[in-house]
Formats: sequence, structure tokens, C-alpha cells
Amino acid sequence: MPVNLSAPVAGSLLPVAGVSLGIAEAGIKRPNRKDLLVINLDEGTTVAGVFTTNRFCAAPVTLAKDHLASGKGIRALLVNTGNANAGTGEQGMAAARQTCVDLAKLLGCAPEQVLPYSTGVIMEPLPVDKIVAGMPAAIANLKADNWFDASQAIMTTDIVAKAVSRQIQVNGKTVTITGMSKGSGMIHPNMATMLGYIATDAAIAQPLLQQMVTEAANRSFNCITVDGDTSTNDALMLIATGKSGVVIDANNRAAMQAVITEVATILAQAIVRDGEGATKFITIKMEGGKDEAECRKIGYAIAHSPLIKTAFFASDPNLGRILAAIGYAGVTDLDVEKLQVYLDDVLVAENGGRAKSYQEEDGARVMQQSDITIRVVLNRGTVNATLWTCDFSYDYVKINASYRS
Amino acid sequence: MPVNLSAPVAGSLLPVAGVSLGIAEAGIKRPNRKDLLVINLDEGTTVAGVFTTNRFCAAPVTLAKDHLASGKGIRALLVNTGNANAGTGEQGMAAARQTCVDLAKLLGCAPEQVLPYSTGVIMEPLPVDKIVAGMPAAIANLKADNWFDASQAIMTTDIVAKAVSRQIQVNGKTVTITGMSKGSGMIHPNMATMLGYIATDAAIAQPLLQQMVTEAANRSFNCITVDGDTSTNDALMLIATGKSGVVIDANNRAAMQAVITEVATILAQAIVRDGEGATKFITIKMEGGKDEAECRKIGYAIAHSPLIKTAFFASDPNLGRILAAIGYAGVTDLDVEKLQVYLDDVLVAENGGRAKSYQEEDGARVMQQSDITIRVVLNRGTVNATLWTCDFSYDYVKINASYRS
Repeated sequence: MPVNLSAPVAGSLLPVAGVSLGIAEAGIKRPNRKDLLVINLDEGTTVAGVFTTNRFCAAPVTLAKDHLASGKGIRALLVNTGNANAGTGEQGMAAARQTCVDLAKLLGCAPEQVLPYSTGVIMEPLPVDKIVAGMPAAIANLKADNWFDASQAIMTTDIVAKAVSRQIQVNGKTVTITGMSKGSGMIHPNMATMLGYIATDAAIAQPLLQQMVTEAANRSFNCITVDGDTSTNDALMLIATGKSGVVIDANNRAAMQAVITEVATILAQAIVRDGEGATKFITIKMEGGKDEAECRKIGYAIAHSPLIKTAFFASDPNLGRILAAIGYAGVTDLDVEKLQVYLDDVLVAENGGRAKSYQEEDGARVMQQSDITIRVVLNRGTVNATLWTCDFSYDYVKINASYRS
Repeated sequence: MPVNLSAPVAGSLLPVAGVSLGIAEAGIKRPNRKDLLVINLDEGTTVAGVFTTNRFCAAPVTLAKDHLASGKGIRALLVNTGNANAGTGEQGMAAARQTCVDLAKLLGCAPEQVLPYSTGVIMEPLPVDKIVAGMPAAIANLKADNWFDASQAIMTTDIVAKAVSRQIQVNGKTVTITGMSKGSGMIHPNMATMLGYIATDAAIAQPLLQQMVTEAANRSFNCITVDGDTSTNDALMLIATGKSGVVIDANNRAAMQAVITEVATILAQAIVRDGEGATKFITIKMEGGKDEAECRKIGYAIAHSPLIKTAFFASDPNLGRILAAIGYAGVTDLDVEKLQVYLDDVLVAENGGRAKSYQEEDGARVMQQSDITIRVVLNRGTVNATLWTCDFSYDYVKINASYRS
């Protein structure tokens, strides 16, 4: 079950003027499952995004990047679940292109104005006919107040839908930001994770919008991991319709960046809290590193260790495994005598070994919690970094051993 | 249960003249468990080894390296299980030193002539008193024909003991090589894995012996992984007593190197076959790479992916996950259109997607086997590399969630 995570309340998700969303059941993987989403954007909307760095990136990722680069105004996003259209070669590219052509026809725009997204099983042919057949129903369903249903339609192994809204005041006017994400396994984003969409009614020019989505991704989706597997289909999109009449530029960017990063962080953390089989949400704080790279190396070594993740699942303070992971993280000049390791407020290790003050019962007490912070103080420099991950349970194996059945 | 692996037959392990082994129950972790091993070496024996690169390496690793470097002839190895003496700081080093001092006294040699090895729980103080108290019984038990019992005494979570003997003829004389290893979890050696000891009655000078153990490790223990966690205590030792009267030098090295590498490979593969919770033994062959580094990067991305490992556990040919791992392995100029992926003899993927000839039933048939080869043909160069790993089961989680209980 998700760790301290509840589904968004339907009424709490605010519409973003200029964005409408329509859902349909296309029967891509299973019948009676909402698996198709069309997001329609008013003319004049800017869109930016960050995408997976996986070399086997999916056909829709390649095509979405091409269409974004074409410079034509984006008018629609098309999302299907149940099939990732990844590892599908030439045929997969033709299939993705076909879905853009058909949706463009129905919406009266050019195919380059449609961005496609797919998520689900890899290396299976995309069922284009089913997707195209489902489009009219999705278009008929288009409405601004549809984020709640949309956040459910993009789920795959997710248990809980992930969406959140915020509002800020800029020059006396209200700006709305609403976002949603999906993802639960194959989570080690590099850029962004599985799928995330954040929309605002502020006006933000494309180059700045790209900077803002990149910065938000680096502080949110690029700081989470469930299993260390970087998906073929990751994408985080930032959409700005301008309908609020508020223009964001380099001068008034800060507050807007902060709230977009906050929304992205909530959505990213929700993915970890809903990580496949997760029973613990683990925050890994690295402090006093020489640079961000070494902080992240050590943090990810801890976050990816199956031995640490299973110990957390068992609430067993077998904390020597954390020292082992710090030791093999690849920071070759690390002096292990100088660092401290904390579990929440409990000092666990210093001077190369167990802290004199450490009592097993203190470690055991913290391990019982569902939200736990591992803090590694490196005492080598001034750089900090934070990552989020979850534990590793029987259910992770169960979910992934039976994913296709 | 171990995958196609049976314990060595007692009589099949050949004594190595100049090496005697003694076992005792020291009660380090549990009562009535053989947990202490003394290996006694005749004068004139040469010893070489490779050790973990973990920065949090255990006190005995540091001390064994120091003692080896002292240049005094090594006369004994001391091995305990149940406690790794890692992450134990100054105290841990003092404890390791004390065990060497006490064993040296009993054997009538200098403390620098003793090499200590520990394996078990990390970050717990080494019970020096119990180890010292157990030494007389181990010494009383010393005999040349004791490899079978010794291979059982060094086990921790291992289910099956791992040991093997070979003989070769050199200039009409018989040379014997007997080796043993232990290890099951925290297996991603860099150098060597948990513990491995190979002894021969050939005479091999120390500098050549060091080259030979390094080469053997690189082709065996450094090609396996269970969970991607590099232990704090890894060591592979090669011992040459010279008692056969055969001298190995640079000129007649090849045949001896081949058999030592063969013994090391059998011992390394046995660790994977006995990997925690393993139900499948997976060989990953990379072919046609530009260099060994990229072959190993891709191989380890496949070997470490929990999604791939759980799919193998389930015998589910969800082979797109292999493409995803190849894609995120970090070979940034990889052209995925050019590579082929095989499961045993079945061509699974080419031209960036599923092979036209691939039938799900062929994949499903291979996945039912307990020994499976994944072959990735990169078509970028002429370098090949092979790794060995296992799948990821409920039992892996169970074993590691309850390791200390």
C-alpha cells in the first residue's frame, strides 16, 4: 500500500484556463479501463519538456521531441497506457506518427502540433486502431475540470492517482498551477519520470519555460528512484496557456519557479510513496559533500542497494549495510573515518564505525516508522543533496513477476 | 535452492602438501556452528591476494594487506564467520590485530605472518575472546585432508559448500590445485568476492603469484553479481607451497594460469548458483563491443535490474526490460538499431525492436530453463565479455529481511 499517500480529492484540482482534458476507454490492454487521454491546448500556449536519456527511448519520445522542435504551436497531447511503444523499431515510429496524424485531423491542426506519450509494456506493437477508434470519445469528453479523471487514466501499476494544484498571486492577479504524474516501477528518472504534466495559466515564453521545467525536474523527478531502472518513456511537460493575463519573465521568475518545483516535488515524491510494493518512504540527505555529483553517487548507492531496501522493509536496523554502500559508491578518496551517519535524529556511525552513543533500541524505534530519513554528513565540503526512495518488499517481486499476466 | 549446484563430494577434494586446515566451534554468532578456521602453511609458501575496493573495507582486510606487504613469509590464515569486523573503526583494527597476535603465539610465528579474514554482520564488535578461546581446538584439528570441513566452516548464508580440486602434469610431475569459496549475498565483487582460497603445491614466486591471482579474479570473481552490493570483506587468496617440486615461472605459466582461472571460475559461478533466493543461473554474454568497459557496463545494467531479475524469477519473457536496461547502461553513443539480443538460441530483438522471427512461445520455452544465456551482439567492435548472475525471488527478500534474526 502507498506510504502516507492519499488520492487527490476531486474538487481540490483546479482547472487551468486554456487546457481541457478528455478520457476514453480504448481497450488497449484490458476492457473497461480508462487508458486514453487527450489534452487539448488553446492557441498561443507554450510547451516545454524534459525526456528520458535511455538510448532505447520509445518512439513517442523521439516524435514528441521532434514535434516540439518544429516550432509550431502545440495544440494537443495524446497519452495512452497499457503499451509503451518502446523497443518497437521503425514500425513503432510509424504507429506513433499515425496517431498524431489522426488526432490532428479530428482537432483541425497539423500532426506536428500533437505530442504523443505511451506507457506500459515494452516491445509490443502499439494497437493504433484501438487508439484511433477511441479518439472521438476522448474528444467528446474534453473539459477543463477533468484533471481528476485524467490523473486516473494515466495510471499503470500505480495504486493511487497523483495530482495537485496550487495558486499564487502575481501583480494582484491569481495564477493557477495544476499537475499530475504517473509511475510506480522502472523509476530512476534521468530526466523526469514516467509521465508528468504540469499546466499553468501564466504566459511564459518557450526558452524560459524550458529552463523552468529543467530546473524543476532536477530538484524533483531527478531526485527519486524506486528500482534504479530508467524508463524508456520518461517525460515531464510544462504547459503555459497565458490565459490568466500574467506574464512571467526572467525578472519575476523566482516565485513561479518555486511553486512549479514544489508541484513537481509533490508529484515526484508521490511516485515513490506509491512505489511498487513500497511500505517505507525513505529520504536520503547528503550533507557537506565536495560537489553534487559525489553526494548523488553516495545517495544512489544507498537508494539502490537491495540489501538496505530489504532491511528497511523488515524494520531491521542492520545499518552496517549503509556503511557498505557508502564505501562502494565510487568516491575513491572518501575518508570513512570523517563521516557521520544518522537515522532521523539518531547518530548511528562516526569515526569509521558504530557511534559510542548508539543504542540498538534507538535504531529499532526509527525503523518502525513509515517515513524515515537517512542523513550522511560527509564533512568534505559545503554541498548538500536530497534523494527519495522506498523499501523493497515481497510485493515488489510479486508485482514485477506478474506484470504481464 | 541452489541452481544446478551440489556440494562437493568429501573424497573429491585433494589435499595440497604444505597446507593444513583446522576447524572449531567458537560460538561467535550461534552455538554448535563451525565458525572458526585456521589454515596453516609450511615455511617457504608464497601467498598473494586481491581485496575489496570498498572504502569502508573491514579491519581484517586492511590488516591482511599490511601483513602481506611486510614481506615476511605468511604461515597462517585465520577465518571467522558470523561477524565481518567492518564499520568498526579503531576498535575493530585493534581486535583484528589481537587475533593475529594470539594465533601467532600459539603457532610460534610473528603476528605479521598471520592473515585475518572475517565475514558476517557489519558494524558489530568482533568477539575477540571467543575467537581466541576457539584457537586451540582449531589447531588441534589441523590436517591436510580437511578442505571439505573447511569449506563448510566458512559459510554464512550459503546453502551449499563450494570447493573443487584439479590436477595437472608439469614436466612429468603432478601439481594439485584445491580451492574453496563462500558467498551468497552482498555479491558484486570488485576485487574478488566474499572469501576465496586457492592453494597449490607448485612453487610460484610472489610477484608472479600476484599476477596470476589478479588475472584469475578478473576472469571469474570479477564477472559475477548477485545484488550489486560490493562487500566490505572480499578477498581471494592464492597460496603456493612448492611441495610438489614443480616451479612455475613466466615461461611455463600458461597451463597453470588456465587451471587456476578454471578453479576460480567454478568457485565464482557456484556463488551465483547459490545466490540468495536464486532459482535461475543467468549467463550474460556481450559480443562485438568497442571495449571491455562498455561490454561490462551493459552487462551489469542487465544483471542488476530488479525488473529483469524478477521477470526471470517468474519465467516471464518480458524481454523489453532487457532493451530498457541496455538503453540506460550509459553507453551514450549506442545505436540501438544495430544490435541483436538473443535468449539462448532465440533471436529476440534487432533493428531497434522485436525480431520478425520472434515468437512468444520460443521466449517462454527458454525462460522455463534453470540455466539461461542472454546474448547481446553490439556490432560495434571485436571485444567480448561474459558475466554471471541470478534471478530475484521472494526468498531473496525473505533472507535479507531476516538476516540478523
